[in-house]
Amino acid sequence: MPRTRSLPPAPGPVRLGPDARAALRPAAVGIDSGFWHTRRATNAHVSIPQGPGLLESAGNLHNLRLAAGTAEGAFQGAYPFVDTDVYKWLEAAAWQLAQTPGDLTGELADEVERIVALVAAAQQPDGYLNTWFQLVKDGRRYQDLRWGHELYCAGHLIQAAVAHHRATGRPELLDVAVKFADHIDSVFGPPGSGRPIDGIDGHPEVETALVELYRETGERRYLDLAGYFVDRYGHGLLGGEAYCQDRVPLREATNVEGHAVRQLYLLAGATDLATETGDAGLRAAGERLWRAMTATKTHLTGGLGAHHDEEDFGDPYELPNERAYCETCAAIASIQWSWRLALLTGEARYSDLVERTLYNGFLAGVSLDGERWLYVNPLQVRDGHTDTGGDQSARRTRWFRCACCPPNVMRLLAGLEHYLATTDDTGLQIHQYVTGRYGDDGFTVRCETDYPWHGTIALTVEAAPADGPRTLSLRIPQWCRDFRVRHGSRTHDRTDTPVTDGWLRIEDTWSPGDRVVLELGLEPRLTTADPRVDAVRGCVAIERGPLVYCLEQVDHPGGGLDDIVLDTGRPLAVKHRPDLLGGVTTIVTAGHRRRIADRDWWPYTSTDGVEDPARTEGDPVELTAVPYYAWANREDGSMRVWLPTG
Amino acid sequence: MPRTRSLPPAPGPVRLGPDARAALRPAAVGIDSGFWHTRRATNAHVSIPQGPGLLESAGNLHNLRLAAGTAEGAFQGAYPFVDTDVYKWLEAAAWQLAQTPGDLTGELADEVERIVALVAAAQQPDGYLNTWFQLVKDGRRYQDLRWGHELYCAGHLIQAAVAHHRATGRPELLDVAVKFADHIDSVFGPPGSGRPIDGIDGHPEVETALVELYRETGERRYLDLAGYFVDRYGHGLLGGEAYCQDRVPLREATNVEGHAVRQLYLLAGATDLATETGDAGLRAAGERLWRAMTATKTHLTGGLGAHHDEEDFGDPYELPNERAYCETCAAIASIQWSWRLALLTGEARYSDLVERTLYNGFLAGVSLDGERWLYVNPLQVRDGHTDTGGDQSARRTRWFRCACCPPNVMRLLAGLEHYLATTDDTGLQIHQYVTGRYGDDGFTVRCETDYPWHGTIALTVEAAPADGPRTLSLRIPQWCRDFRVRHGSRTHDRTDTPVTDGWLRIEDTWSPGDRVVLELGLEPRLTTADPRVDAVRGCVAIERGPLVYCLEQVDHPGGGLDDIVLDTGRPLAVKHRPDLLGGVTTIVTAGHRRRIADRDWWPYTSTDGVEDPARTEGDPVELTAVPYYAWANREDGSMRVWLPTG
Repeated sequence: MPRTRSLPPAPGPVRLGPDARAALRPAAVGIDSGFWHTRRATNAHVSIPQGPGLLESAGNLHNLRLAAGTAEGAFQGAYPFVDTDVYKWLEAAAWQLAQTPGDLTGELADEVERIVALVAAAQQPDGYLNTWFQLVKDGRRYQDLRWGHELYCAGHLIQAAVAHHRATGRPELLDVAVKFADHIDSVFGPPGSGRPIDGIDGHPEVETALVELYRETGERRYLDLAGYFVDRYGHGLLGGEAYCQDRVPLREATNVEGHAVRQLYLLAGATDLATETGDAGLRAAGERLWRAMTATKTHLTGGLGAHHDEEDFGDPYELPNERAYCETCAAIASIQWSWRLALLTGEARYSDLVERTLYNGFLAGVSLDGERWLYVNPLQVRDGHTDTGGDQSARRTRWFRCACCPPNVMRLLAGLEHYLATTDDTGLQIHQYVTGRYGDDGFTVRCETDYPWHGTIALTVEAAPADGPRTLSLRIPQWCRDFRVRHGSRTHDRTDTPVTDGWLRIEDTWSPGDRVVLELGLEPRLTTADPRVDAVRGCVAIERGPLVYCLEQVDHPGGGLDDIVLDTGRPLAVKHRPDLLGGVTTIVTAGHRRRIADRDWWPYTSTDGVEDPARTEGDPVELTAVPYYAWANREDGSMRVWLPTG
Repeated sequence: MPRTRSLPPAPGPVRLGPDARAALRPAAVGIDSGFWHTRRATNAHVSIPQGPGLLESAGNLHNLRLAAGTAEGAFQGAYPFVDTDVYKWLEAAAWQLAQTPGDLTGELADEVERIVALVAAAQQPDGYLNTWFQLVKDGRRYQDLRWGHELYCAGHLIQAAVAHHRATGRPELLDVAVKFADHIDSVFGPPGSGRPIDGIDGHPEVETALVELYRETGERRYLDLAGYFVDRYGHGLLGGEAYCQDRVPLREATNVEGHAVRQLYLLAGATDLATETGDAGLRAAGERLWRAMTATKTHLTGGLGAHHDEEDFGDPYELPNERAYCETCAAIASIQWSWRLALLTGEARYSDLVERTLYNGFLAGVSLDGERWLYVNPLQVRDGHTDTGGDQSARRTRWFRCACCPPNVMRLLAGLEHYLATTDDTGLQIHQYVTGRYGDDGFTVRCETDYPWHGTIALTVEAAPADGPRTLSLRIPQWCRDFRVRHGSRTHDRTDTPVTDGWLRIEDTWSPGDRVVLELGLEPRLTTADPRVDAVRGCVAIERGPLVYCLEQVDHPGGGLDDIVLDTGRPLAVKHRPDLLGGVTTIVTAGHRRRIADRDWWPYTSTDGVEDPARTEGDPVELTAVPYYAWANREDGSMRVWLPTG
């Protein structure tokens, strides 16, 4: 394990600008072992390397060659945004290169430069770039902003370019992005600006990308352009549909709505703007909408989006299980947005949601072997489920027709260390617990932990500033009911240690070798929902630490899952299973299979309060719950997160 | 009220052929007062007369003129099946004309003949007729059977033509239909038949229509063609998708699946075939699939189709409330199919489902004033619902972009008397209780009832055959727990009167003036669901007689509905309200508003079985439940059928 004392910040997303009004700044983090290291290794060695082959066979790279005039044939793919699969892969590969700078001259670096060259060659002389419009739509640009995704594609190109530049220092892709951004800046603007089009894209995304471009280039024009776009949503330019985030301006909105990913990317951009400009209205909107979302529209897994139809958030407390949409991309967008709010406000709750989403709704999106994906992440697959296949299948798929999620997972995993810790003038804040090193040049802490399987987090100071005390802030997760912390010879727990807004703050004058050991209580727990969440009335979910658990049919031979009742009051036994699903801690408890009396046909019974005779006690059954993120990695079958208790 | 002794059968759907193997034959029925008479009067005087104007403004009639070359302009409408709106309206108008033969020379008759002429003029010389393909698709016929709806449109044309011919005796529309059917018969057939295309339509419908055309013309070719189509589904001709009913042949299927209306129309056609040909395999498939559907995929209202996405049935026991799709057309198709099974088998259960669907899932589809419609029929509208408008709005709409439902409602209401009673060699079976006359020439019974508000059904024999005893069979509804029947001086109840498979059979040698008075117990009741229906765990629904009840926000000032708990064990008071919603019986009972503690943000709580402190008792509230069919006729607001009990 590397034990050097200096910890240079690796390039990553959200590098705040010099005037940013953020409470916290991203800290440098190096992950070198443990849970997320394993998943990132699979991302680095399996998922990312397979990208170019998949982009080739799906036709994305072919389309770039067509646009460059270096290949012949027909456009491939069904959507106007297929270029973004390439861009998101490039962003993932760039963050990966930044992790392992030795690879800069290796195979991955070669692949990146090859594909960057394809992108550059496809760009039109004035900076425009979108293979769908260049090849299929005869160059009729910006005439279908509601569906065209041209600025959305530009956004992902810009993000890839910023990543590529930060990771490698090479200018090629950034040049393409700047040229496209300048082109967009010359075309879009408010009435009276001299720009021909007053418009926005049906799919927000360019906004947050333009803020990153401002951060990378220092060009304030890009920040202004992002601000213009953010504020033009909600005024009917796209017909006023919630789907396109055009029903109501963010500054007036009271809850998240419409297409979940669109809403979340827009909010990430708005929060970026609030951070860089100090815009109090946008900050307030972000804080208000985040609270409304988490209180009324978030699944237990952190998943977002209740409707398959229009990929919509749905109504407050409408949180179905089997039809939870919970697109993997929405989980990613949620993490991106929450992290920006964490930086802006300094509040721990945002990282509570990041943790929950990372370990559950996000991580379920990729198989343990890194080769298969889920686009939607339901909380239940019913007994007798007929899977219709396609992108929205409840079975893992090698690649999608709309392949937005896989490279999005890749880019988040490759850049994950940038979502874990922060610094401010008082010290270091650890938001997520992974084995590795945290800090900045002056104050560096090594963390050793087997989290989330064990609750012990051992922190050792490796370097400390000599100029006075610093505060080491540890996030006490929202789910955590008891903890102990040892600092030197003193041990504290919740009774004598204040946790303020989620932060346990330890101020000290630190020396190398100083240790803090945090022990988070990981007793498994049964969780219930607000009674307005109709979908889970009379049910509990099993959780342990940050992990949501589920039952899978394969662990419960002799039947399905939909007749199983969990017997509350029975022990929840913790059983680590190194052999299972790459090594997981299971929760074993007791339940029974309800005996359901045979009905002639009609499944409804009038009882006037008398217990339905069809509901009788049944055979006991041992229940084995596995972490939700690991579901659907064995044989197909039913699955449940929420379990009836009677 | 008319009191003539003869009861000529009015023309209607499902006129069995001479060789039909049905257990029962449709009887003649005349509805002349009461609940359904009122609704049919609105249909006759408001809905149907408004049809031509709406078809004109939506462009359907314009398209026919375009195809005939008698108008200029662009095709109007977004779907390849817009012609069917015209055909279904024509069918509705035809059954309406049959009800009121005096109108044959009136305004409605004139409108019908005008529109029949438009249809005839649009037909191509070889019999083909589809304005979308003629005008938009440059006549590229039958090249997109999966989405083209050409045979689906033909089916509705044929049904309209059969109705027009039966109702008026006029040949004009039947000639058009025969010509198109002959054209289809010349194009479609199995390999080796000499027909160029071995294919089926993505949307079944022509099958049941072709059986009706056989019944009307006596041409067995049409029956054979229907049989060919029915048996070609499920063999991958359309790519094997469940959506198109192409995943598995009906003869092998174990549950209904895919697009609900497509499945139900196909099953109606298959049951027609089983009836006319004696095909035991199709009969068995119909009986099997009907039982699976009612046991696992039917909402309490009789509504069918759990998914908005693909209008799909969903999985067994997947019966959501707020996202119940329950298309009005699916309710209609279900009634049509169940009625065919009732005729084929003689079993009362099919009419149990017809009754439930008629009074709830179907009737909710049209407003009380006959002018506004619901395409989807959810069982809940949440507090804070954001309605996105469009065809699938939870608010009633004047007309739809895809206007399949309104004229479908019109045709069912106009032909409703054909779904109410049957005869066989032993006598008369009354399936539904409406005020009017039932029977055939030899055995006629008058029924007087205020059903569903009151349970008394008074039957008086008006004519009886002199040649011996006849059996008067009365369906005892599946929901009915107690009844009394007076026949002459004798009174019986469930304790001494056998009800066999839903039928109370009274054999007697009848004379005019003989009376039977059936009193169905209409005590309101609380209903629970099979525990596998996760969506309604811990909830009850209020029902009375055939009616499902719901709460509407407008009757519960001071808040929404989603915090309301019904207190079981409290009286369910019956209160008739002639002033409300056209006159409805309400159910008044007691509940309370749950006090929900303010949560900071996260709506899930780990309690380990301890009662969530956020759930506390709250203020008592009087609950006023109204019949589900009458919902959404006042101000917009939330609505619930299923009510939590704790």
